[in-house]
Amino acid sequence: MKKIINNIDNLVHEMCSGIAEAFPDKVEYDETNKVISRKIKKTDRVILISGGGSGHEPAHAGFVGKGLLDAAVCGDVFASPSVMQVYNAIKKNHTDKGVLLVVKNYAGDVMNFDNAADLAIDEEDIRVDSVCVNDDVAIEKKDDRRGVAGTLFVHKIAGAMAEKGAELSEVKRIAEKVINNVRSMGIALESCTVPARGKPTFELEGDKIEVGVGIHGEAGIRKEPHIHSKAMAKKMIDRILSDLPFKKEKECALMINGFGGTPLQELYVLANDVIKLLKTKGIIIHKSMIGNYMTSIDMAGASISLLKLDEETKALLDEPCDSLAWKEF
Amino acid sequence: MKKIINNIDNLVHEMCSGIAEAFPDKVEYDETNKVISRKIKKTDRVILISGGGSGHEPAHAGFVGKGLLDAAVCGDVFASPSVMQVYNAIKKNHTDKGVLLVVKNYAGDVMNFDNAADLAIDEEDIRVDSVCVNDDVAIEKKDDRRGVAGTLFVHKIAGAMAEKGAELSEVKRIAEKVINNVRSMGIALESCTVPARGKPTFELEGDKIEVGVGIHGEAGIRKEPHIHSKAMAKKMIDRILSDLPFKKEKECALMINGFGGTPLQELYVLANDVIKLLKTKGIIIHKSMIGNYMTSIDMAGASISLLKLDEETKALLDEPCDSLAWKEF
Repeated sequence: MKKIINNIDNLVHEMCSGIAEAFPDKVEYDETNKVISRKIKKTDRVILISGGGSGHEPAHAGFVGKGLLDAAVCGDVFASPSVMQVYNAIKKNHTDKGVLLVVKNYAGDVMNFDNAADLAIDEEDIRVDSVCVNDDVAIEKKDDRRGVAGTLFVHKIAGAMAEKGAELSEVKRIAEKVINNVRSMGIALESCTVPARGKPTFELEGDKIEVGVGIHGEAGIRKEPHIHSKAMAKKMIDRILSDLPFKKEKECALMINGFGGTPLQELYVLANDVIKLLKTKGIIIHKSMIGNYMTSIDMAGASISLLKLDEETKALLDEPCDSLAWKEF
Repeated sequence: MKKIINNIDNLVHEMCSGIAEAFPDKVEYDETNKVISRKIKKTDRVILISGGGSGHEPAHAGFVGKGLLDAAVCGDVFASPSVMQVYNAIKKNHTDKGVLLVVKNYAGDVMNFDNAADLAIDEEDIRVDSVCVNDDVAIEKKDDRRGVAGTLFVHKIAGAMAEKGAELSEVKRIAEKVINNVRSMGIALESCTVPARGKPTFELEGDKIEVGVGIHGEAGIRKEPHIHSKAMAKKMIDRILSDLPFKKEKECALMINGFGGTPLQELYVLANDVIKLLKTKGIIIHKSMIGNYMTSIDMAGASISLLKLDEETKALLDEPCDSLAWKEF
């Protein structure tokens, strides 16, 4: 394994420190709890906190900023942050208007974020609520679906709502609207290598791809022969649209997300195929994003996320935001 | 070779088409000449055109936009665009105030951009001038130095100057000031795979890294044992500062650039080491950038670029810009 690291045990800390050193005007770093939070705190709005295991950079610390998250709690690589990490993030960043936790649907995250919320409510009388993102349509059963790249649309749209000064119930309502209208599907060409393990998490013979991968190096739903970009686009979009039919609503936001080891070159090619396919279906793309947003360390591959928009979510998606990895103005 | 592509011969076209399809409000695509240009054209400022071989995405098409480039001419993967491609880009995008070409110091690019400029001057009476970026300090001899990630600071600062309505001579002057004050150095952990070749360009035994790589998959200046991030940071920064001493001037802009196959996780760790090292030397970082800006397809590794700032370049660096891959506001 060749990586640009120093000490595996210290990786998450050094990463967070790098972000804080590079952007000292925008974020601050709580080393004890591994929390990246906004530099400028306000007391008159709902606070949005997300996080999870590390290894998904720029998520989630790269989305801390105006119109997005207030804080990101960084667990070890592919491991949920602890209850105390999340609890302390809530305690240090909360306002009287309350806190909304944006949790990805993984057992560890759900348990720890929920327990942290309970603790903050019981011990500190802080108003805390949470939403759970489960956008991964690779998995048939809705309750089992993982939270993947579509989570970033929740950050953006709920973040814009919170920035406007909306109440906690309103911020939660819009976050849930996004969750109900976003679907993602991913394909991997090569496994990632978790630093502590030192070798690829799964093996893919020469010409095989993993269809329906998650973002933690878990193997996909099935192995299939390697296909061209156009066929990958069709496979992923067909699955997404079978679960998220567009009827009267015709507008969407599209994210072509790289998993960390796939160059932009390939993401642009995939975007070309996806957008042309969506056009043939009469779906209008209000906004496209192409890049590494929710990665799986250095996995090669990409996911497609589609968010069905209405006037309300569209307007909030277009609101300004300012973070390391997502800027709108 | 597993990549998300369709047809190798059509790769550059599909990539450009993907960019144009995804961002139709911002850029337009001249398919014949493989040129991405700004959607909204103005006639009252100097036009900035760059480009070169493809494979460096998001460079250069991702830097077309307000306060940056007006057009990017896209050659085949790692091959200069032709004279006619560049000539047509000049012809279609020029204004009466003139055109500045930003060329990276590679024989093919220099020859073709120069010939295109001569042709535009002779045939069309267009005012064209050019600058040549040679920021790669891996190479000792200045004339032989390659243009690498530091080129993006030229785009940004000359782009801001052009946006203000400055004359061609002024835009050229500031571009050359940036070129004189920017240095880069790169290290690769794994080779890239050029799609048409289908296998890695160079081989690196298990524990070796390439020090002083360029951005075209060429092997570096020497192979060395794999070292930790902190040692990599020191190696690169020492070389840069030996060529670009900071005396009274203490402010710089820093770019930690990924080569395409290295995840942000590792770039953040490297940034942490670089910034802490620069601080011990009393160098103040006015602006940091961490990400994939000038890639080498899917090469694993990173480069560091350091730009020494004065009040003029600092102010222009901070000016707003709006492209796919670089936004300031």
